[in-house]
Amino acid sequence: MTHRILVKGATIITMNANRDVFETGDVLIEENLIKSIGPEIENPQEATKVISGKGKVALPGLINLHNHAAMTLFRSYADDLPLMEWLEKRILPAEAKLTGHDVYWGTSLALLEMLKGGTTTFVDMYYHMDDVAQACVDSGIRAVLSHGIVGINSILGNKTLKGAKEFAQKWHNTGNGRITTMLGPHAPYTCPPDFLRKVLKETEHMDTPFHIHLAETRNEMNDSLKNYQKTPVALMEEVGLFERQVLAAHCVHVTEEDMDILSKRKIGIAHNPGSNLKLGSGIAPIVKLLEKEALVGLGTDGAASNNNLDMFEEIRLSSLMQKGYHGDPTLLSVEDALSLATRRGSGALQVGDIGVLREGAKADLILMDFEKPHLQPSDNPLANIVYSASSNDVDTVIVDGNLLVEHGRCLTLDEEKIYFEVSKSAKRLRV
Amino acid sequence: MTHRILVKGATIITMNANRDVFETGDVLIEENLIKSIGPEIENPQEATKVISGKGKVALPGLINLHNHAAMTLFRSYADDLPLMEWLEKRILPAEAKLTGHDVYWGTSLALLEMLKGGTTTFVDMYYHMDDVAQACVDSGIRAVLSHGIVGINSILGNKTLKGAKEFAQKWHNTGNGRITTMLGPHAPYTCPPDFLRKVLKETEHMDTPFHIHLAETRNEMNDSLKNYQKTPVALMEEVGLFERQVLAAHCVHVTEEDMDILSKRKIGIAHNPGSNLKLGSGIAPIVKLLEKEALVGLGTDGAASNNNLDMFEEIRLSSLMQKGYHGDPTLLSVEDALSLATRRGSGALQVGDIGVLREGAKADLILMDFEKPHLQPSDNPLANIVYSASSNDVDTVIVDGNLLVEHGRCLTLDEEKIYFEVSKSAKRLRV
Repeated sequence: MTHRILVKGATIITMNANRDVFETGDVLIEENLIKSIGPEIENPQEATKVISGKGKVALPGLINLHNHAAMTLFRSYADDLPLMEWLEKRILPAEAKLTGHDVYWGTSLALLEMLKGGTTTFVDMYYHMDDVAQACVDSGIRAVLSHGIVGINSILGNKTLKGAKEFAQKWHNTGNGRITTMLGPHAPYTCPPDFLRKVLKETEHMDTPFHIHLAETRNEMNDSLKNYQKTPVALMEEVGLFERQVLAAHCVHVTEEDMDILSKRKIGIAHNPGSNLKLGSGIAPIVKLLEKEALVGLGTDGAASNNNLDMFEEIRLSSLMQKGYHGDPTLLSVEDALSLATRRGSGALQVGDIGVLREGAKADLILMDFEKPHLQPSDNPLANIVYSASSNDVDTVIVDGNLLVEHGRCLTLDEEKIYFEVSKSAKRLRV
Repeated sequence: MTHRILVKGATIITMNANRDVFETGDVLIEENLIKSIGPEIENPQEATKVISGKGKVALPGLINLHNHAAMTLFRSYADDLPLMEWLEKRILPAEAKLTGHDVYWGTSLALLEMLKGGTTTFVDMYYHMDDVAQACVDSGIRAVLSHGIVGINSILGNKTLKGAKEFAQKWHNTGNGRITTMLGPHAPYTCPPDFLRKVLKETEHMDTPFHIHLAETRNEMNDSLKNYQKTPVALMEEVGLFERQVLAAHCVHVTEEDMDILSKRKIGIAHNPGSNLKLGSGIAPIVKLLEKEALVGLGTDGAASNNNLDMFEEIRLSSLMQKGYHGDPTLLSVEDALSLATRRGSGALQVGDIGVLREGAKADLILMDFEKPHLQPSDNPLANIVYSASSNDVDTVIVDGNLLVEHGRCLTLDEEKIYFEVSKSAKRLRV
């Protein structure tokens, strides 16, 4: 029997380029695709399941462009510290003790939080990636995964490059196509130019995209200028990275020329406003990047620097930061802000079939319960979502046509077990 | 029979000056006060009600120092607009149509949101204040209320001053002492110096404190310098306002000398980070104000400029903004940030018996449910609250010894009725 879900009578925010909103509408899902969508679907084919949209608002599942999911293990473990102390005294020593078992359960906690909070696709870079991928398959989420590559010495460089290549090939297009892969050179300052050239050469037969941290801090910018007489972005252009498909996280410290390069080369940019503020990295020039038609989307970064994985907070912060910093309340409107987590997120990944509700797109959608005091009155649902909502307002989550969250309860993951395992791992890892 | 509530086996964050945290502890409430608190209360007197603290974290009820509660009626009605267009084209015309009935229900919606979100005390300035006060009494919340005074012409000036005085006297110490009052001269730019002097003179027999908007925008600063050759803060000092007890909202645009005046005069400061960002007003110098031992607390401002009334967001934003803007992740630590909404909030109001859990304080406390993915692992509850929690995580709310919210359900307010009435009013008011 064909698997069909009918969402009936919800307010629908399509996030398509026309900005179509249906005050009351239906969505028919067939297998893993949206079969039809509109004000009312007449005589729909028999549905396996009908979901009432009364009092609810449907929108595309959110896309989290940058995460290190397993770092939920280090949530609230290293706050209010200088960046180097955060990294060297807390995070690196704890990470050195990580096992695949820890990573499986830390990732599962992140998946539980993301799914319940309306994130249907996320991008990850970490280690023990087989365990990350397995957790993703088990949860039903859509994921773009990369194994970190670090070239600070040749032993580590060779090992991580080999691991990254093997992982990218082994897991690409698994989990019914929900899992795809990238290669993850960590950052320009951990992957020097010669090493990066080697990475590019050894992977030239693969059409796997790259995920990299880029221009995150003032220090990174200054060191790059000192060591290479080039900004991090210009250095990546010179090395040839941008001839491949790239998703770059952060891009806080970029010059006018850097922004032109990022735009011209169609580099996906994962903006992480919460993490950038919390680590004191700065405020990325998102308004200018959007003016230059750069491919900007939104991410949370890992829970060690955010500390939650609530994309609604990032949507809101992205707008508030630009308005407040530039002293202009008209910047980054509700449509712009929500598009970063939906339509523009898929643009940054260079896939067209998620992040928007339309016929033929992947059936990744969420329903938000608007019968909450902070979401009333409800006549402007887009503004309510951007300026008032949180992940707790998500009622229903469908990924690839599968119902994963129903009335706020995750159907695929065992909450109690996850809390138990994570608590046990955290106790061992945190010194 | 004596009314006693025992909270048993919760993690307790006292927010006292010693920063005492009990990993597992009890709180015994008798009538409207905390009778005892500690790791374990032996043989407590018989309790009317026992609340299990298992998996929960207790902390003082949050104090929202600045609101216009009824403006929930204008939530998501005027976003992404220049300040003057926001005010003159949207807010003022809609406010002109407000009735006491609208204000009662708009305020009730705000009270429902605040109570469910862990706010136990709030400060308000608005009109139709009898209706605001009645809604507060009906809900059980603790409130500090002021009737706005606007002196842009003598008719309005006389009318609002009279209204404010009458309101302050009529409602002070009502609702079992939960309602207290202030006088609300709106702002220096709507209350010129001569009018303010008249206000001070006509109220010199009252010991009622003042609530005023102060130094919110760059324009206010520039106009004040142009018209009076003084900053707004220096002007208020000259006029004599600061010889009275004052709570000043915003204080974004202040000079070094202004900060010294605010500190020396022990002026309460309501910092509203979300509203200041959203309206493009700027970033208040909170770190410096705290260094100068100024009395800073935290507010949401009204829902037309925030747009929710979630104090956890303001706590988090207050810290993130300072870290991000100054490029220093060590600024405004978790204890500092949470103190703004608790202990320091009561300091700004110059009352000592709320905002902290200790024997003899008012029994205003909340319990947060930590069995949520974004609050795990839970070994650092203070950091989880500041960097991960939201109003949706509040399970139990007690104000003045009365249980007002239980398992997330408000016991004193009728949600359905509020949504219905607010939706009806909003439809009429929004043009």
